[in-house]
Amino acid sequence: MDVFIEPIARLINEFSKLPGVGRKTAQRYAYKIISMPEGDAHIFAEAILDAKRKVRFCKTCGNFSEEEICPICRERDPSEICVVKEPKDVIALEKLHEFKGVYHVLHGVISPMNGVGPNDIRIRELLMRVGEDTREVILATNPDVEGDATAMYIAKLLKPLGVKVTRIAHGVPIGGELEYTDEVTLTRALKDRKEL
Amino acid sequence: MDVFIEPIARLINEFSKLPGVGRKTAQRYAYKIISMPEGDAHIFAEAILDAKRKVRFCKTCGNFSEEEICPICRERDPSEICVVKEPKDVIALEKLHEFKGVYHVLHGVISPMNGVGPNDIRIRELLMRVGEDTREVILATNPDVEGDATAMYIAKLLKPLGVKVTRIAHGVPIGGELEYTDEVTLTRALKDRKEL
Repeated sequence: MDVFIEPIARLINEFSKLPGVGRKTAQRYAYKIISMPEGDAHIFAEAILDAKRKVRFCKTCGNFSEEEICPICRERDPSEICVVKEPKDVIALEKLHEFKGVYHVLHGVISPMNGVGPNDIRIRELLMRVGEDTREVILATNPDVEGDATAMYIAKLLKPLGVKVTRIAHGVPIGGELEYTDEVTLTRALKDRKEL
Repeated sequence: MDVFIEPIARLINEFSKLPGVGRKTAQRYAYKIISMPEGDAHIFAEAILDAKRKVRFCKTCGNFSEEEICPICRERDPSEICVVKEPKDVIALEKLHEFKGVYHVLHGVISPMNGVGPNDIRIRELLMRVGEDTREVILATNPDVEGDATAMYIAKLLKPLGVKVTRIAHGVPIGGELEYTDEVTLTRALKDRKEL
């Protein structure tokens, strides 16, 4: 490390904290910053501080928001609630321009292995939101063990309330080939087959 | 893009300016920043500003430096000068702990295609450094067309001054296999063969 002068070493160190960034990549990023015009580097640093300052979580859905209540919660149909694990899942779904309801971000899934219980994620907040006006709760946690378990857990809590609870479909991805589909997915696709 | 709130969109945009970073990766980096403790994000932003503020170029060799003259130029044997294209080449060579002389960073190579002529890189500064005390100038520009041409150009300028000018060796990389070595390298390795 002593081949780098201190301010560069420190910048490389900071960039190494980003997900998937090793020393070599961090080094390339640091060089880019140093070769930027002064003003551009300021804008970069300011964007980091600004995001940290302005971005908070919507009090209702838990998604990223600049205001106390996010625009989706303020403006859209609250009778359909789509439950996801993380804010980035909201982005993935919003890109489809398909869903017209609102979201509920759990900020995690139940994971006994990692010491995450039902009280550590926003399940209580979900139960408080669900009421007479709720037509449907779509459970869109990831199709893995923890996501499935969390969906099952929430479904059990919601069903006694008389609300319609659905889970996103699992199956063979469109454009995928059976040959290359993993066994668990293929089994699921077969089990969940639909009559035509 | 309107799926992201403004401060996040702006941060993603900034991260996209880093070399090799696409929208998806920039998005992951932005999420990481947002999920950081406030203090850590400040340290990150400060490292960017600090690197930009403190890092300048050594007046003698052109390498990154915090002072007017870098420690390598101040402390090491000035009779051997190793000429490289960029500051990162200095890092690569310094990691070897092999070379005991000083460097000269050209900040580019001659490239008519890109409109870079001999006067656009630090060749004049090199000629001014070379004097009676200079035992050897090692040309360590990259082994590509532009790096070779730049080395040849500099060699022609220096030889009349009676200084020893050398070029780093080209050849088959250690641990490499002939079968997978490209033809240009292999031709060069054969031509530059040494008697044992």
